[in-house]
Amino acid sequence: MRKIYVVGIGAGDPDHLTLQAAKAIGRTDVFFLLDKGEAKASLVELRERLIRGYSKPRKRIVEGRDPDRDRNPSDYTGTVADWRHRRSLVLEELIVEHLDEDETGSILVWGDPSLYDSTIAILEEILERGAIDFEFEVIPGISSVSALAAKHRIGLNRVGQPFQVTTGRRLAEGWPEGVDDVVVMLDAQQAFTGHPEADIYWGAYVSTPDELLASGRVADVGADIVRTRTEARERHGWIMDTYLLRRRAGEGRTAGE
Amino acid sequence: MRKIYVVGIGAGDPDHLTLQAAKAIGRTDVFFLLDKGEAKASLVELRERLIRGYSKPRKRIVEGRDPDRDRNPSDYTGTVADWRHRRSLVLEELIVEHLDEDETGSILVWGDPSLYDSTIAILEEILERGAIDFEFEVIPGISSVSALAAKHRIGLNRVGQPFQVTTGRRLAEGWPEGVDDVVVMLDAQQAFTGHPEADIYWGAYVSTPDELLASGRVADVGADIVRTRTEARERHGWIMDTYLLRRRAGEGRTAGE
Ligand SMILES: C[S@@+](CC[C@H](N)C(=O)[O-])C[C@H]1O[C@@H](n2cnc3c(N)ncnc32)[C@H](O)[C@@H]1O
Ligand SMILES: C[S@@+](CC[C@H](N)C(=O)[O-])C[C@H]1O[C@@H](n2cnc3c(N)ncnc32)[C@H](O)[C@@H]1O
Repeated sequence: MRKIYVVGIGAGDPDHLTLQAAKAIGRTDVFFLLDKGEAKASLVELRERLIRGYSKPRKRIVEGRDPDRDRNPSDYTGTVADWRHRRSLVLEELIVEHLDEDETGSILVWGDPSLYDSTIAILEEILERGAIDFEFEVIPGISSVSALAAKHRIGLNRVGQPFQVTTGRRLAEGWPEGVDDVVVMLDAQQAFTGHPEADIYWGAYVSTPDELLASGRVADVGADIVRTRTEARERHGWIMDTYLLRRRAGEGRTAGE
Repeated sequence: MRKIYVVGIGAGDPDHLTLQAAKAIGRTDVFFLLDKGEAKASLVELRERLIRGYSKPRKRIVEGRDPDRDRNPSDYTGTVADWRHRRSLVLEELIVEHLDEDETGSILVWGDPSLYDSTIAILEEILERGAIDFEFEVIPGISSVSALAAKHRIGLNRVGQPFQVTTGRRLAEGWPEGVDDVVVMLDAQQAFTGHPEADIYWGAYVSTPDELLASGRVADVGADIVRTRTEARERHGWIMDTYLLRRRAGEGRTAGE
């Protein structure tokens, strides 16, 4: 039976790699790389470095072309589903062509595979089509959220309290109900600027050599972060940033809530 | 300057250890253990195994007695704050007594230090008192949440959607507003039973040799999980379990929401 590992490799620092992930890399015959259209140098470099460092000498590396994707679609969920579908076709072809019956393949996933990543869904979609069969196993990784919290030396929750993990797109619609602590990923629109009363713990390229960190009340540091972010994005051609917004308990709630 | 590492060691599997954590353990002169009153054998064993495996020969291990704590307090937050305070006094004394000026100490934390763990807050409290000074650094770890998701091979979020992380105590008050996906930790009361319409992805002792997993609609598998959980808790004397509850989008919302 073919076997495929979905390996969380951490959020930037090569030393985020777990021993479990290093072992999986060491057992891998074929690495499947699906590259993003944009050139995200750190991602590619990290992946190559880990493969170089921990794989066996006779592994193969096969690359597929990641299908293009509309970055500002009107129908977000539908567009993502369609992109996943096309991605699953590309990956299926790679598996059929390159992974022999008794071999082990790996897909290296940035951060933790359980967080805003489509690899698991894509493998499920391939299995559902039923044209090929394989086992797959997921290996957890250090997420950008854990990395961010570690660098700021904060907890994500307050004592006994919940927190929400969401996207910039969602936060732009308003502060989420029922929580005072919100972790925001995939924010292309700096939605934190809508919440001057909150404290922000922000990080870009966290745990890479380009790491940028900032924290404080949004009213005080928000404009600086926007500026830093714009400059960094221009310099690198892309940006990955994540933040925690924390407001005083109950703050901003309307009467009756 | 004294230095203290807060090291996330993962949620049970010794191979969850990151290379960064292994290196920190290797640089440590003094390990500080604050033991829980309850004997949580796997926790103690994992910690010992990692220290044995990755520390330098001449390290020291010092143990403090974790202050007792009311497990069913009427004032939850106040009780936790008081317990943290007493814990910070115990740890401060250990640091003063055992960590020399130029030495490095470590506190090994289960899972990821950013998730429902008090170690960071305790160190901040010691620093605020101002009687001793040290640097501290947090090293992220694989959380039980990432481990659970990996074992069930699921994402925590659905495409573009938020999710909430909360406690059993909170879930018992009702399904949280604004989310259809909820990760529940610290649940002593099996609060999932109140949501028969949801799907559950449950795990106890995840990524340890005693791991138990179950999933399905709560209406179908909930009673089984309650039984399994009770038996396991009796057998081991304690239990650690976590789960994701997932309901169909918008299900259970009242009109007008
Ligand atoms: C498609 S999601 C993948 C998340 C990934 N699976 C994880 O566990 O971190 C990409 C988002 O993750 C966040 N991100 C990933 N790596 C990051 C890093 N090193 N620093 C800051 N944010 C990061 C950003 O919010 C980015 O928009
Ligand atoms: C005080 S919190 C600490 C969480 C930890 N910092 C983490 O990142 O997983 C303890 C809770 O974590 C969860 N937990 C920790 N380890 C677990 C495991 N191996 N399996 C299932 N749940 C676990 C349970 O919900 C437990 O009540």
